[in-house]
Amino acid sequence: MDKIRIGIAGYGNVARGVEKAVAASPDMEMRAILTRRDPASVTAAWSGAPVYSVDDAEKLVEEIDVMVLCGGSATDLKHQGPMFAALYNIVDSFDAHPSIPGYMAVINEAARNTTAVISSGWDPGLFSMIRLMSHAVLPDGESYTFWGSGVSQGHSEAIRHIAGVRDAVQYTVPLDSAVSAVRGGSRPRLETRQKHERVCYVVAEPGADKAAIENEIKVMPYYFADYDTTVNFIGDDEFKAGHSGMPHGGMVLHSGNTGENGHMIEFSLKLDSNPEFTGSVMAACARAAYRLSREGAFGAKCVFDFPLSYLSYKDRPTLIKELL
Amino acid sequence: MDKIRIGIAGYGNVARGVEKAVAASPDMEMRAILTRRDPASVTAAWSGAPVYSVDDAEKLVEEIDVMVLCGGSATDLKHQGPMFAALYNIVDSFDAHPSIPGYMAVINEAARNTTAVISSGWDPGLFSMIRLMSHAVLPDGESYTFWGSGVSQGHSEAIRHIAGVRDAVQYTVPLDSAVSAVRGGSRPRLETRQKHERVCYVVAEPGADKAAIENEIKVMPYYFADYDTTVNFIGDDEFKAGHSGMPHGGMVLHSGNTGENGHMIEFSLKLDSNPEFTGSVMAACARAAYRLSREGAFGAKCVFDFPLSYLSYKDRPTLIKELL
Repeated sequence: MDKIRIGIAGYGNVARGVEKAVAASPDMEMRAILTRRDPASVTAAWSGAPVYSVDDAEKLVEEIDVMVLCGGSATDLKHQGPMFAALYNIVDSFDAHPSIPGYMAVINEAARNTTAVISSGWDPGLFSMIRLMSHAVLPDGESYTFWGSGVSQGHSEAIRHIAGVRDAVQYTVPLDSAVSAVRGGSRPRLETRQKHERVCYVVAEPGADKAAIENEIKVMPYYFADYDTTVNFIGDDEFKAGHSGMPHGGMVLHSGNTGENGHMIEFSLKLDSNPEFTGSVMAACARAAYRLSREGAFGAKCVFDFPLSYLSYKDRPTLIKELL
Repeated sequence: MDKIRIGIAGYGNVARGVEKAVAASPDMEMRAILTRRDPASVTAAWSGAPVYSVDDAEKLVEEIDVMVLCGGSATDLKHQGPMFAALYNIVDSFDAHPSIPGYMAVINEAARNTTAVISSGWDPGLFSMIRLMSHAVLPDGESYTFWGSGVSQGHSEAIRHIAGVRDAVQYTVPLDSAVSAVRGGSRPRLETRQKHERVCYVVAEPGADKAAIENEIKVMPYYFADYDTTVNFIGDDEFKAGHSGMPHGGMVLHSGNTGENGHMIEFSLKLDSNPEFTGSVMAACARAAYRLSREGAFGAKCVFDFPLSYLSYKDRPTLIKELL
């Protein structure tokens, strides 16, 4: 069997996660890494794949079955998504929830002769699949999504932009009280502040005004103002020893009823490495994109649009025998 | 939109669960209940659907879009499955895991012009979907399935056949030690006895030899001999008050790695009513069977074979907006 030829556009942490997953997959091979940096300055971490400039994207069309876009939703994908979808089957992890329908329409327009599986990863992605499955089985019900405990790159970055901050990491932490209330089956209405808290570890520059930094964090609109936020100042060594990883996780709870009988569906993830797990989901979705494209199912798709068997390298009889 | 017309063959607890789920679904309607009993002796619990003899199955072909088979794997389905699949789109909950591939081949042969979604429910069914999704994302990993705490009808029935037993219920209980070991990430090898224990509540006939009953339970091959089993004798009143429900549940844990980084995926169910939840899953799968049949995707299918969106009554744009 010919292997599925994978390209990666954008080479950061998630991209290295995709590359690692592809290297571990018997049915896929890494064929190209595209970067906006000088290609000579980038070396593939988990494969011997050649590195090209993203400007050479059009030249590789014959070499690649699926291009995995590892750029971020906020900036890269709105531009890169349609551009690549016009040339390649693509997978991306567009995760700005309210903007997904609009983005999908744009991608659908571009993907006339290609298949584009957008918004893969774990949320959107696996969590979306659980929300759909749960709602379909228990339509008289309510789904609750919690993120963490885990590092939010965006929030950490926001703190690092504050004057006097040398380094910082922010953990999003679901509140036990909220999770317990949902498990109780009463389908509580939970405000933002009642679902998650934010815990920050900050290394201040020598002589910085810590009280001012703490205040600036806590009042920051959107990122922190709507949450109960704790700021811990720590030293360089403690920071490096305890806060260099990228763990994450989260859970979807669905509380539903069949008449008087209550049922609880729970799905949770505990991840040592958020980017590697996200990359693994995207690699599995690349397989699905490839299979859809072979069927001529072109346009913008998501995790709701293909049979689950398309995610696995194993053939259908094996899946039925081993996993059904 | 025309509603999907549902029939049910076999009218026990799961069937009433299907009927209740259909009654709560805006896109489906109950059109017929088929029973092996005297139809005059059966009244629909959750709908005004007419009751027919199962012998009239062939007469209803024009009336029904999907027939949901609610018989058991051990006896009913091996006969009823192929018979109904030759006439109708069907859904069943065939759950004898090792026999699934053989059963599927027989059904596939019968379902020449129909769609048959077999082995729906929660295990096989939702749990199978989680096992597949988990394996696809983390192929370097191991899935563990635990059942309970919950009532096993088969084991309860086995106890009730023992002389001197008036009534009995058996709970399958996952062992905390096993769940903890899996969560630890070491991918332990667990023997049958290490995963679950069996807890029985028995009402003995007056004057019965309780020690003999207890022994007969504990040595029963297949059902109890391979497990640590606890037998509690209780009175009629306590039995009725505390053990009349049909709660169940269980969990799938997938412990996997991306290189040195470990990840844990967990899916769990806590169900007040096992038959009503199972019926709800089957009703959602009836929707999928109907859609597959409209596409001309005939033959034996399972939960691995259709897009998740086919499970929901909501249209794709709504699912994407609300759940992705």
